[in-house]
Amino acid sequence: MKKIFLLALVAPMLASAQDTYQKDLSDSAFFRLISSNIFSSRSSYNNLYTLTKTIGGRLAGSPQMVKAEQWGEKEMKDAGADKVTLQECMVPHWVRGGKDKASVTFKNANGKTQTMQLNVLALGNSVGTGATGVQAPLLRVNSFDELEQKKDEIKGKIVFYNCPFEDTFVQTFEAYRKNVIYRAVGASRAAKYGALAVLVRSMTNAMDNNPHTGSLHYIDSLPKIPAAAVGVRDVEKLDTLIDNGAQLTAQLFTYGKMLPDTIGHNVVGELRGTEFPDEIITVGGHLDSWDVNEGAHDDGAGVVQTIEILRAFKSLGYQPKHTIRFVLFANEENGTRGGKRYAELAKQNNEKHIFALESDAGGFTPRGFGFTVKAESWKKLNNWRLLFATYGCDRFTEGGADTDIEPLNEAFETPMAGVRPDSQRYFDVHHAAGDVFEAVSIRELKLGAINMAALLYLVDRYGL
Amino acid sequence: MKKIFLLALVAPMLASAQDTYQKDLSDSAFFRLISSNIFSSRSSYNNLYTLTKTIGGRLAGSPQMVKAEQWGEKEMKDAGADKVTLQECMVPHWVRGGKDKASVTFKNANGKTQTMQLNVLALGNSVGTGATGVQAPLLRVNSFDELEQKKDEIKGKIVFYNCPFEDTFVQTFEAYRKNVIYRAVGASRAAKYGALAVLVRSMTNAMDNNPHTGSLHYIDSLPKIPAAAVGVRDVEKLDTLIDNGAQLTAQLFTYGKMLPDTIGHNVVGELRGTEFPDEIITVGGHLDSWDVNEGAHDDGAGVVQTIEILRAFKSLGYQPKHTIRFVLFANEENGTRGGKRYAELAKQNNEKHIFALESDAGGFTPRGFGFTVKAESWKKLNNWRLLFATYGCDRFTEGGADTDIEPLNEAFETPMAGVRPDSQRYFDVHHAAGDVFEAVSIRELKLGAINMAALLYLVDRYGL
Repeated sequence: MKKIFLLALVAPMLASAQDTYQKDLSDSAFFRLISSNIFSSRSSYNNLYTLTKTIGGRLAGSPQMVKAEQWGEKEMKDAGADKVTLQECMVPHWVRGGKDKASVTFKNANGKTQTMQLNVLALGNSVGTGATGVQAPLLRVNSFDELEQKKDEIKGKIVFYNCPFEDTFVQTFEAYRKNVIYRAVGASRAAKYGALAVLVRSMTNAMDNNPHTGSLHYIDSLPKIPAAAVGVRDVEKLDTLIDNGAQLTAQLFTYGKMLPDTIGHNVVGELRGTEFPDEIITVGGHLDSWDVNEGAHDDGAGVVQTIEILRAFKSLGYQPKHTIRFVLFANEENGTRGGKRYAELAKQNNEKHIFALESDAGGFTPRGFGFTVKAESWKKLNNWRLLFATYGCDRFTEGGADTDIEPLNEAFETPMAGVRPDSQRYFDVHHAAGDVFEAVSIRELKLGAINMAALLYLVDRYGL
Repeated sequence: MKKIFLLALVAPMLASAQDTYQKDLSDSAFFRLISSNIFSSRSSYNNLYTLTKTIGGRLAGSPQMVKAEQWGEKEMKDAGADKVTLQECMVPHWVRGGKDKASVTFKNANGKTQTMQLNVLALGNSVGTGATGVQAPLLRVNSFDELEQKKDEIKGKIVFYNCPFEDTFVQTFEAYRKNVIYRAVGASRAAKYGALAVLVRSMTNAMDNNPHTGSLHYIDSLPKIPAAAVGVRDVEKLDTLIDNGAQLTAQLFTYGKMLPDTIGHNVVGELRGTEFPDEIITVGGHLDSWDVNEGAHDDGAGVVQTIEILRAFKSLGYQPKHTIRFVLFANEENGTRGGKRYAELAKQNNEKHIFALESDAGGFTPRGFGFTVKAESWKKLNNWRLLFATYGCDRFTEGGADTDIEPLNEAFETPMAGVRPDSQRYFDVHHAAGDVFEAVSIRELKLGAINMAALLYLVDRYGL
């Protein structure tokens, strides 16, 4: 595209980044101030670089978790928080323990035994096979219905859950919600019928071979068996072999181990409210990430956006009426302990929480927010939508928010929202090797922080 | 993000890809059919791979242009066009001619002469310096106003246009429209005052050092001087040096040459209308791209989306009432000859053109369309918007379309539209080394084709 002959469509003059908040500023003018300030700053991107490249993957209980907490505390102070506290929080301590490996052997067309390596990653929280591994015939099922139909064949086998990710859903999260149950409880469901281990097709739209990990939850009453995710290119090969009648024997080596819970921290920065200091608005993302990548979109983006909003508010001289808490939650991926602890302490301290917002759906271009609010709040929200249209973030939908703030809503019925970025690329990288700094666009990341900041401002100013 | 406890939000059952068009199908049902069909197909992505990786950059007049035309003709036939024609079209034939190089020399803090290499790319259509190069003092100006103020200092110098890309614009195209004038006519404006060459800051939001080329237009009455774009990291270094008072001498070596016009072709596939075969709807993208990348977003995306819509319509058994022309325009980047020729032939043949649609703003998630239509068409468009909301492409704006279809609008006042994808990442790669296959998301690409197909269907069915 060239377009050189178009006359400059000069946008309304943007406020310069030096401008500061004044009480008589219109909402749209302050929105522009926020936008210019954040678009002009490299802080969020530089922070993301440090978090992903210097600290890296930071699963709860890992040495990187400790570094990330220290980093978060310092950045929050530097960004201008009135105070920063570390909320102690017991977190699960799962370790991968070694390099996950898997293969299948089968007789090829010439009757010769052939081995094919598979790209796998043990699922978070899973038990390992240990160095002896597990070797057993592979049984493919495409659904839990099929598992039930074949329950008499399962004993002594490795079950391979192969429910394809539904590419035809426009919103990729719908495909994830449909399939994630196989990762979450597939191991226990198969163990019930005597399976020795499970392999699960990766939850992804991508066309590469990176396995996508994520947590599983064992049902206590059933044997705990090893479980791993398989890259989709390898899944396709397995499918072809099985469709052609090959009898596959699978070998799996994983070393996962759940150690005793350990101590982590929610990092909580605060801007104290000028009029209602005891009424709290929370905004946050989660500090933990899987060990197999840099946790850039999940949820480095939410973390640095949270800090960026604090920096921008301070830089603009915005003094909130209510206390705003900027929270980096200690543990979401394999335990949701950070959010639970935050709500638990809020309850203990008899706090009043009026709103919570989270960014945990990737650092992509924000398209809107999902709201869990009282029905009567929608009139206000629909009026606000117009302000967000200029910034492309006016798709306000009912329901949904993110995992770390749900316990707050359960405890206090706190109205809550989650930012909803464009989802087309999220499951290309989610919980897989591709979730690295380079996969995040600086402008998309900033645009998320801009729209979140504007929503916080409106709630602070007008309530919800 | 984990979200494993959310119940599956089962979307309305999507029509399977095998379903075909029936007259009594509702518009939203057919939209779903199109969506499922395109999301389930790998054709567009495979086509993009071939066009970018096998053929590569394909500037008008290059051997790759010829290959791209042959490829386009074959793909259009394979996709099921009733007929495919090649419209002969004279195209400009500019060649880069060699490796562009530039450097600056200056006295460092210790009084020693130091040389710094610059990442540069000659601008398209520019004359070269030849092997002797141009060496002259560098004069920085930040605007044409500053150029005018300094007109007496320009003679014998290399002018360095350094107007920063405005990061605070939410829509990146606004920043481009504001600055592109320096690339387009900066050389002639400086030549007027005796400059020997110009360097232009790259038109980009990116934080890398890839120079961004693009076409310039010499003003005939003024001397033609060499011109090149500089990577922004190097621009920042130059800025620091100049701000610190360094006197810079620049050296530039470029080899660009405008050869005589040569023969190219618009590739035109057609689905013949069942009721109004003489009323024509056009959809297209441009086949040419710069020589320095793979032309994936600009405009490989538009090209493969165009072919994909043809494939999907045929595969769904959709027989348009009006004739639909699927056009791969021969030349946009440095001449707009393809679109001009298409309109010229339409006029010669006394054709009736009722609508034209183009995709030439990148293969990113589509957010809406820009329409140049009669005022009375907006009632209809506003009704249609609801159908597009499900697919996230309901931002309908007034004005705008893309370059290749503008001549049709000028000739016939044909209503026209351009698809408007999310623009946050476009100028990271536009006309630079980063515009390669890997920068395109398969789902974002497909979603563009889906929404374009739906718009064509609605116009075909109900007119505009």
